Amino acid sequence: MPASMTTKEIADLLAGTLSGDPDLVIRGLAGIEHAGPEDLTFVANPKYAKHLQNCRAGAVLVGPGIRRDGGTQIEVENPYLGFVRLLETFYPDEREVRCGIHPTASVSPGAELADDVAVGAMCTIDDGARIGAGTTICPHVHVSRDVRVGAGCLIHSNVSLRRGVRLGDRVVIQNGAVIGSDGFGFAEEEKGFRKIPQVGIVILEDDVEIGANTTIDRATMGVTLIKRGTKIDNLCQIAHNVVIGENCVIAAQTGIAGSTTIGDGCRCGGQVGIVGHLKIGDGAMFGAQSGVSNDVAAGTIVSGSPARPIGKWRRIEAALSRLPELVRRVRHLERRIEVPDPESGERKE
Amino acid sequence: MPASMTTKEIADLLAGTLSGDPDLVIRGLAGIEHAGPEDLTFVANPKYAKHLQNCRAGAVLVGPGIRRDGGTQIEVENPYLGFVRLLETFYPDEREVRCGIHPTASVSPGAELADDVAVGAMCTIDDGARIGAGTTICPHVHVSRDVRVGAGCLIHSNVSLRRGVRLGDRVVIQNGAVIGSDGFGFAEEEKGFRKIPQVGIVILEDDVEIGANTTIDRATMGVTLIKRGTKIDNLCQIAHNVVIGENCVIAAQTGIAGSTTIGDGCRCGGQVGIVGHLKIGDGAMFGAQSGVSNDVAAGTIVSGSPARPIGKWRRIEAALSRLPELVRRVRHLERRIEVPDPESGERKE
Amino acid sequence: MPASMTTKEIADLLAGTLSGDPDLVIRGLAGIEHAGPEDLTFVANPKYAKHLQNCRAGAVLVGPGIRRDGGTQIEVENPYLGFVRLLETFYPDEREVRCGIHPTASVSPGAELADDVAVGAMCTIDDGARIGAGTTICPHVHVSRDVRVGAGCLIHSNVSLRRGVRLGDRVVIQNGAVIGSDGFGFAEEEKGFRKIPQVGIVILEDDVEIGANTTIDRATMGVTLIKRGTKIDNLCQIAHNVVIGENCVIAAQTGIAGSTTIGDGCRCGGQVGIVGHLKIGDGAMFGAQSGVSNDVAAGTIVSGSPARPIGKWRRIEAALSRLPELVRRVRHLERRIEVPDPESGERKE
Repeated sequence: MPASMTTKEIADLLAGTLSGDPDLVIRGLAGIEHAGPEDLTFVANPKYAKHLQNCRAGAVLVGPGIRRDGGTQIEVENPYLGFVRLLETFYPDEREVRCGIHPTASVSPGAELADDVAVGAMCTIDDGARIGAGTTICPHVHVSRDVRVGAGCLIHSNVSLRRGVRLGDRVVIQNGAVIGSDGFGFAEEEKGFRKIPQVGIVILEDDVEIGANTTIDRATMGVTLIKRGTKIDNLCQIAHNVVIGENCVIAAQTGIAGSTTIGDGCRCGGQVGIVGHLKIGDGAMFGAQSGVSNDVAAGTIVSGSPARPIGKWRRIEAALSRLPELVRRVRHLERRIEVPDPESGERKE
Repeated sequence: MPASMTTKEIADLLAGTLSGDPDLVIRGLAGIEHAGPEDLTFVANPKYAKHLQNCRAGAVLVGPGIRRDGGTQIEVENPYLGFVRLLETFYPDEREVRCGIHPTASVSPGAELADDVAVGAMCTIDDGARIGAGTTICPHVHVSRDVRVGAGCLIHSNVSLRRGVRLGDRVVIQNGAVIGSDGFGFAEEEKGFRKIPQVGIVILEDDVEIGANTTIDRATMGVTLIKRGTKIDNLCQIAHNVVIGENCVIAAQTGIAGSTTIGDGCRCGGQVGIVGHLKIGDGAMFGAQSGVSNDVAAGTIVSGSPARPIGKWRRIEAALSRLPELVRRVRHLERRIEVPDPESGERKE
Repeated sequence: MPASMTTKEIADLLAGTLSGDPDLVIRGLAGIEHAGPEDLTFVANPKYAKHLQNCRAGAVLVGPGIRRDGGTQIEVENPYLGFVRLLETFYPDEREVRCGIHPTASVSPGAELADDVAVGAMCTIDDGARIGAGTTICPHVHVSRDVRVGAGCLIHSNVSLRRGVRLGDRVVIQNGAVIGSDGFGFAEEEKGFRKIPQVGIVILEDDVEIGANTTIDRATMGVTLIKRGTKIDNLCQIAHNVVIGENCVIAAQTGIAGSTTIGDGCRCGGQVGIVGHLKIGDGAMFGAQSGVSNDVAAGTIVSGSPARPIGKWRRIEAALSRLPELVRRVRHLERRIEVPDPESGERKE
C-alpha cells in the first residue's frame, strides 16, 4: 500500500527546493499523462517540459531550468533519481514470500539455508545448495545440487538454477529464467553428433539482474561469467563460456554466442546478435537488431546487420533510401553516353 | 476421441450444399495431403483446388466455385470457418484438468475460487487471488497475490502470473509464459545502476491468447495493457507500459519495447522489433524481422530493418539485388568519360 | 568428481601416440588458456597451434602435424573427438535425480513407468503417460496425458510435455522447454478471431536435443516432427506442422514458421527466421539472422534478410559498404556530363 507524504516532507527527503503549497498531501506517483491532483509526477528531460501545462498532477518534481507556470513544484538536481527514491518510499518492497520454508517445499537435509531465508511453495532445493541471509526464493523454483546463492537475492517463480551455479549478493532473477543449462556443443561423428559434456558452471556476480525466460548456458569447461551490476532483459540467450563485464545493460531477445567476451559498461539494444569468439571492448554500444560478427573496439557504437560503426551505417542507410533513384540516374547517364551526337556537342536521350 | 458423422449430418450442421454420397461416414479430419477415404478435408483457396484431383479424402469441404471431379463434396460460403467448426465438433474440448483442487495444490485460504474452477497438481495460488467460473489452471502454475483471473480461462502448466495481474474472461495462456515480470528499468548512478521499482500491473482483456514462454512485463507505474481479442504467439517480449489494441495478431519472437502504443487490428510477422515510445496506428502491418523505429500511420504496411513502407522497401530490395552490377556499370561509365577521344566523338574504354 | 589418469593411460584409451612423460598424472581437462601443469588440453585446428608455446598445460592432445616444442603430447587422428571422450571419462554422468519416484511427485495410477525411471520432486505425470527404462525426469516437470517418453531420456526441470507428445530414446530436453503447445492458428470472423483447435501432436525422434525455453508447437492436425539426431538450441520457436530432418543443428533464437519442411543435415545460425510453407533441401545452411522467405535447394548456403545465396549476399554487402561513395561518384559523373564543353572536347566540373 503506498504511503502518503506532504510536498514539504518530499522536498526535505530529496533535499529539493519547494515552491508552491508545502502542505499538499501526495498519495501517489504517476507518469505525466496519468497524474491527478493527489499525485506527484516528474520531468527530467526539458523536451517534455511542454507537457507540464496540461498536466493535472498536484505536484511536479523538476530539474534545474524546468518550470511549470503555477502549481507546486520541487526542484532537485536529478529528478529521475529523485523519483526512483520516491517510488521506493511509496511502494516499500513487500517480501514476495514469507520468511521460513513453506511446508510444501522440498529442501534436502544436505542444503544450508541462512536463518531468514524465505522459500516459497513447491520449491525444490537439492543437496549441497547454500542460500545466504535475506534471500527470497519464490514458488516453483528448482535450486539444484551445489548451487550457491548469496545474500539478499530474489529468485522469482519457475526459475531453474542448474547444478553448481553461483550467485553473488542482491542478484535478482525474473520468472522462468534458466541459469546453467547445457552449452550447445556437439562433435560431428560419422553418423550424427556426439554431445560434448558441459562440465563448467555459471557465475552471476553481485547486483546482477536476469530477465524472465532468459537462458544462460554453463561453460563447456570453466565459467560463463556475468560480472557485477550487469542487467540482462527478458528472453536473452547467453551461450557457454561467454564473459560479460560489469554494469552492462542488455535489452530483450539479444543473443550472445559461445566464448565471446564483452567489456564493462556495454549496452545492447533489443534483438542484437553477437557471434562467438569475439572480443568487445569496454563501453561499446549496439543498436537494436544489429548483427555483430567482428571484434568491436572500446567505446564504439555499431548498428545494422552485419554491424558497422554507427556513422557509416547511417550513411549507408541514407544512401539505401535513394538506391532505386540512383539506379534510374545511372540508366539515364548510360543513355546519354551511349548515343553521342558529335554534331551539336550535345547528347540525346 | 473424435466423433463420427455422415456427410449429410455435416452438410446440415454447416448449412452447406451436398453433392455425392450423403451416407458416407466421416471418422476424421485431415489436411489435403494426408486425408484418407474416411476423412474429410477442405479447400478454401482456389489456388489449392488442383490438389483435389490426387486427394484421397472421402469428402471435401469447398468454397463457391471449387469442385472436385467426382466424389462427395459439401459447398459452403467459408470452408475455413466451416472446417474449424468441424474440428470443434470432432475434437470436443476435454478439460485439461479435472474440476476441483488437486490435493497437491497449495491454495491460500485468502484466495477466492469459483465453484467449478479446476486447479491442477502442484499449483500455488496466493492470498487475495480471485479465479472465475469454469477456469482451468494446469499443473505447476503460480498465481501470485491479488491476481484476478476471469471466467472460462485456460492457463497451461508452468505459467507465472505475478502480483496484481488481471485477466479477463476466456483468456488462454500457453505454457511457461510470464505475465507481470518487472519492467526493465534502471537509473544510472555514480557506480552502476539502481533498480526502478516496477509498481504497475498487466491487464489482459477478454479473449486474449498468449503463447508459450512469452513474457509480458508489468508497468513501471500504471498498466501494460493487451486489449480484447489480441493473440500473441510464442517467445514474444512485451515491455513495460506497452498498450496493444484489440484483435491484433503478433507472431512469434516479436519484441515490443517500453511505452509503445499499438492500435487495433495490427499484424506483426515473426521476429519483429518495435522500439519504445512509438505510436502505431490501427491496422498497421509489419513484415517478418522488420525493425520499427518510427511511428507508423494507420493502415500502413512496413517491412525491413529499419522498416520502410512496403512499396519502398520492395524497390530498395530489388535494387539491392542489382547493386554489384550497378557498381560495375558506374565504373564503366567513369572509364568512358575520363578518357574522351575528341577526334571521333567516341570514347575508348 | 573428475578422475585422474596418467598420460600413458590416456594415450592407450585413445589409441594415440605418446611423446614425453608417460607417467605424468593428469587431474583435469581445460581449454588452452586456462590449463595448468596437471591438466590436459587439446589443439584440433592448426591455426591455434601457435598458442601452444605459452600454454602451461601438463599435456596436450594434438592432431597430425601439430607439435609443441618440448613437453608431453599425445597425437591422435581427431583430437576434438578424443577430448570429448576424455570429458566423458573424467566427468562421468552423474544422474541428476535418484532412481525411483520422489515422494513429492504426483504420478497418476494410470501412468506406466519402467522400473528404473527417476522422477524428481514436484513432478506431475498424468494418466496414460508411459516412460521408458533409464529415463530421468528432473523436478517440476509436467508430463501430460498420453505422453510417451522413450528410454534413456533426460528431461530437465520446469519442462512441459503437453498431451500426446511422443519422445524417442535418448532425447534430452533442457529446462523450461515447452513441447506441444498449441499451434498459433485463428480463423478471422466478423468480430475478431476464432481459435482453430490444435488437435495434432509433436514427435521428437531418437537422440534429439532441445534447448532451454525452446517452444515446439503441436500440429493443427497430424504431426510436428523433429527427426533423429537433430539438435535445437535455446529459445527457438518451431511452429505447428513443421518437419525437421535428421541431424540438423539449429542455433539459438531461430524461428521456423508453420508447415515448413527442412531436409536432413541442415544448419541454422542464431536468430534465423524461416517463413511458413517452405521446402528446404538437405544440407542447406543459413547464416545468423538470415530471413528466409523462399524455398532453398539442397546444399545451398544463404545469408541476409531477405536471404540470398551466400556469394551473392557477400557481393551485395561489399557493394553496400561503398554505396555512399557510389552516390558521390554518380553525382560527379552527372556534373561532368550535364555541362559539356564542345570546344575543347573536355568537360568542366
